[in-house]
Amino acid sequence: MTAPEVFTLPALAAFHAAGGSPVAVADAALARIAAWDDPALFLARVPPNAVRARAATLAAEGPRGRPLYGVPFVVKDNIDAAGLPTTAACPDYAYAPTEDAPAVARLLAAGAILLGKVNLDQFATGLNGTRSPYGTPRNPLVPDCIPGGSSSGSATAVAAGIAGFSLGTDTAGSGRVPAMVNGIVGLKPSLGLVPTQGVVPACRSLDCVSVFALTVEDACAVLEAIAGVAPADRYARPAPAGWRAAPAPQPHWRLAAPHPDQLVFDTPEDAALYDAALARAEALGGTVTRVDIAPFLSIARRLYDGAWVAERTAALREMVEGRPDSLHPVTRGILAAGLDKRTVEAWDDFHEAAEARRLARALFAAQDLLLLPTAPGTPTLADLAAAPVAANSRLGTYTNFVNICDLSALAVPAGFRADGRPAGVTLVGPAFAEARLAGLGAALHAAAGVTLGATGAPVPPPPAPPTLAADEVPLLAIGAHMAGLPLNPQLRRHGGRFLHAARTAPLYRLYDLGNRPGLLRVAEGGVAVASEVWALPAAGIGPFLAEIPPPLGFGRVTLEDGATPLGFLAEAAGVAGAPDISATGGWRAHLKAKEQG
Amino acid sequence: MTAPEVFTLPALAAFHAAGGSPVAVADAALARIAAWDDPALFLARVPPNAVRARAATLAAEGPRGRPLYGVPFVVKDNIDAAGLPTTAACPDYAYAPTEDAPAVARLLAAGAILLGKVNLDQFATGLNGTRSPYGTPRNPLVPDCIPGGSSSGSATAVAAGIAGFSLGTDTAGSGRVPAMVNGIVGLKPSLGLVPTQGVVPACRSLDCVSVFALTVEDACAVLEAIAGVAPADRYARPAPAGWRAAPAPQPHWRLAAPHPDQLVFDTPEDAALYDAALARAEALGGTVTRVDIAPFLSIARRLYDGAWVAERTAALREMVEGRPDSLHPVTRGILAAGLDKRTVEAWDDFHEAAEARRLARALFAAQDLLLLPTAPGTPTLADLAAAPVAANSRLGTYTNFVNICDLSALAVPAGFRADGRPAGVTLVGPAFAEARLAGLGAALHAAAGVTLGATGAPVPPPPAPPTLAADEVPLLAIGAHMAGLPLNPQLRRHGGRFLHAARTAPLYRLYDLGNRPGLLRVAEGGVAVASEVWALPAAGIGPFLAEIPPPLGFGRVTLEDGATPLGFLAEAAGVAGAPDISATGGWRAHLKAKEQG
Repeated sequence: MTAPEVFTLPALAAFHAAGGSPVAVADAALARIAAWDDPALFLARVPPNAVRARAATLAAEGPRGRPLYGVPFVVKDNIDAAGLPTTAACPDYAYAPTEDAPAVARLLAAGAILLGKVNLDQFATGLNGTRSPYGTPRNPLVPDCIPGGSSSGSATAVAAGIAGFSLGTDTAGSGRVPAMVNGIVGLKPSLGLVPTQGVVPACRSLDCVSVFALTVEDACAVLEAIAGVAPADRYARPAPAGWRAAPAPQPHWRLAAPHPDQLVFDTPEDAALYDAALARAEALGGTVTRVDIAPFLSIARRLYDGAWVAERTAALREMVEGRPDSLHPVTRGILAAGLDKRTVEAWDDFHEAAEARRLARALFAAQDLLLLPTAPGTPTLADLAAAPVAANSRLGTYTNFVNICDLSALAVPAGFRADGRPAGVTLVGPAFAEARLAGLGAALHAAAGVTLGATGAPVPPPPAPPTLAADEVPLLAIGAHMAGLPLNPQLRRHGGRFLHAARTAPLYRLYDLGNRPGLLRVAEGGVAVASEVWALPAAGIGPFLAEIPPPLGFGRVTLEDGATPLGFLAEAAGVAGAPDISATGGWRAHLKAKEQG
Repeated sequence: MTAPEVFTLPALAAFHAAGGSPVAVADAALARIAAWDDPALFLARVPPNAVRARAATLAAEGPRGRPLYGVPFVVKDNIDAAGLPTTAACPDYAYAPTEDAPAVARLLAAGAILLGKVNLDQFATGLNGTRSPYGTPRNPLVPDCIPGGSSSGSATAVAAGIAGFSLGTDTAGSGRVPAMVNGIVGLKPSLGLVPTQGVVPACRSLDCVSVFALTVEDACAVLEAIAGVAPADRYARPAPAGWRAAPAPQPHWRLAAPHPDQLVFDTPEDAALYDAALARAEALGGTVTRVDIAPFLSIARRLYDGAWVAERTAALREMVEGRPDSLHPVTRGILAAGLDKRTVEAWDDFHEAAEARRLARALFAAQDLLLLPTAPGTPTLADLAAAPVAANSRLGTYTNFVNICDLSALAVPAGFRADGRPAGVTLVGPAFAEARLAGLGAALHAAAGVTLGATGAPVPPPPAPPTLAADEVPLLAIGAHMAGLPLNPQLRRHGGRFLHAARTAPLYRLYDLGNRPGLLRVAEGGVAVASEVWALPAAGIGPFLAEIPPPLGFGRVTLEDGATPLGFLAEAAGVAGAPDISATGGWRAHLKAKEQG
């Protein structure tokens, strides 16, 4: 059997399930590396025979339930993989790590096949991919355009179809801008979710390990494999109970978008591609509210201007002060500027950052997600050479604030200009909102009319609503707790996750109890009631129920498909005298009818 | 009626409940201010007639459920109270705030009576209380000893019996050291729990509003009144759901204490007082594990040595650079040192702080609380004058690291040396562990053989274990889940704990569904049903409910005492045709009747 043409996780899983061998996949990956023939891509390769040997070991073992069994991947060369040098694209900095970074170790434990370490903007400082003494990786979509950075090789290897996914890092946008310019998906997880142990620091307090993949679902699966506290990781942060990355679709989305006059684009065509993505988000159930992003743009400018540039300098102080000639000239200039900063002024930056985080909390109390352009446009290599710092800064317009504000983000493709240059949008959410980002992100990607990277393969349909996790129970919402209605935030606060719309069996009557309905099972004359099945962590049911006033409680409700989830039931004595609104068929229809008077 | 001798909250509540007037309390407070006659205590007083007018208004309104009704309090003069100047003990800095800080506004809304603004170490910089141009407040326990700082006046006013409680602030220990040297309780809440809006910044990122009180229970009650996000507070942090401050006793405590060779004391007697407190904690159910606190002592030293001193400078930069002569000479020296700090070195401090937080997380994963001396000893005023910086630094030995490590803390008295100088211990826990701190703290205080501040009043007995823990909900069992019946093990498996027998209000009918009963609320003809109230962890409700088959569910049941716990309810349609056994009065009686058949 020959390996699948496109290395998505489902394609590889199907191949292996049908008896295909990881060795065939490894051989195909090695052949693709040879055919791609980009001397600026790999900074260190796992020797081909070692790749084949690893695949043969996997083949002998079988999948054993490993989620990334036989998936080839590459790692940005600022993340340690034992046996390969770590250079951070600075030859004089190179060292030989004896241990894998926890993220790499977890990928290997999950069955993935490491192909090698790939190029980056030196010390992950840059968003364009041209700041490396090892050359500039080739953009597989538009060869005269930048590959993006700093995770240049991580993005091009996936877009070129060599690796099924890759690890990058993201401090200022290095996990998102390269995704856009290569037409792939870039997932920037919450701060502290993936260990940064074994990662060469850029801004240690802001650095994230990020994931590039062809699809949103694949990126989420990889993130689930690498997420979780490593005991020795000082910036680790435990995820909330029940955290998942897997896409959580919703029927309605409260979306924020910047005021149009706060948006900058390279060309009107780039602007139109963003507007088209917004329109697609609306078609997918989004309600767009324009918001003021000036405070975020303002804090974003301080990332390379203020306290955080000195954080980069601090991480490399010995080189900046002792061996400046070892540094790339542009990087050297940036890092040297950090030496002069005064702490008394750094605190102004930190307090402004705290204010920006406060505003972000307020924003995401009212909105599910913020939808931004990933960058104003995709520049050419010539554009970058003409203005190495200014063109780079412009690339970070919409990305630089995200880590300072403790947010999560997902970059997905958003189509092409007529000249073939790609556009992209980034969904931004609060910390640990990866599942929400992915829920809309997968649907937006599927609706964008693009193919996967440079592979030509179609985007898979967005995921069906996910099934129930082991620690979750289904709960039927029939009233104000349904998506978009006033009490829905309460349901979400207890960990609720939308599964699907549903109808009850025709065994119930519905009553109007004021701001909420009451559902009552009856022996005769029952109707089917429109409702929604949500997944709740079992541990969240009690605290949720403790907030529900009588005459409502939780019991078993029978659905028309025969399922019997827990659901809101009213006591018969509690609905006595309340208007019977069963004829409307459900609470939403009843509200609409009331509104129309 | 004359006001109670000691202004604890229960004493004042009992006085008011017995018909006593807040005016009598206000008059008593004013008389005590006059009798205490310390010109260095108040920096601004609410005029006596305004205090009486406020009390008269409260008297006219009555308590209206307000938890601090008629309780006199004072506020550290770095916290805004509208109508009084804020000086931070720097006359040239003074301004006239037009709004109360949210913490003050909440206390007034809770019915408390503001007496005025009190002295502090200038700009809250210091732990001794002598760094004020307004003089040094008198220590009511040991007049030749320091009053402690920076919240000097806040602590002495409570210890002297003038105020029922007070607000302080705590960045390095200013809410704990003064508690120790005045023989009272100092509660340093979690970062971000109480708004710092309207507070003159010391280290904005670390500042906390703190509470001084005569008892742990009083401090907790005050904290509950002032806790909660203020929307405009950029360092606000929402507390976890279900957060409470009220003492949560435990039968067992996992306690950490420093390795003996890491402890420093002024005298062997101070050491013996700490050891005695440890022994009392063991007698109260504690198991003590010795731990390495070197990393915490190390980060503590950076608070005045590294990045954070520049944070103080940043907050007052205009004065430090432009009007240095307006500053207290010691304060000026400290703040001026912050001007020279470089950001590139500040990051070393921040990364070490992140490491200390990681170690603290690991510590509190294995231990409930850390029990420390509050300070090595209580120095005299002469000791302080002889070494204004060194003696001050020594006072912060065990306090300086707490806010940097994102921890909560509670200082309680721990007895006296033979020369009358007080000792104290501080319980330290993770963020938002206030209830746990208070649970052990109240018991330690009661066991310490001391009286309340300088009032001579005894320490109240520690609170009895609450009927319900903070993370539990009451659940009414009415059938086979009651104690000794066949399904009781299922209830226990989900964490159930028997609380007490109960009877429902006479609003229900009971049906025999075979091996279990069904309880149905009815509009007419209801009876009271014998039942049992159990405590279940809120997280256990969902998994338990998932095992309960229809037609039963959980809803609110009304008891004859008016309580409305969750309980087993049947759907009306599900009991149709089942035998009505209401006349038996309950499932146990029904079973007995069946048995006797």
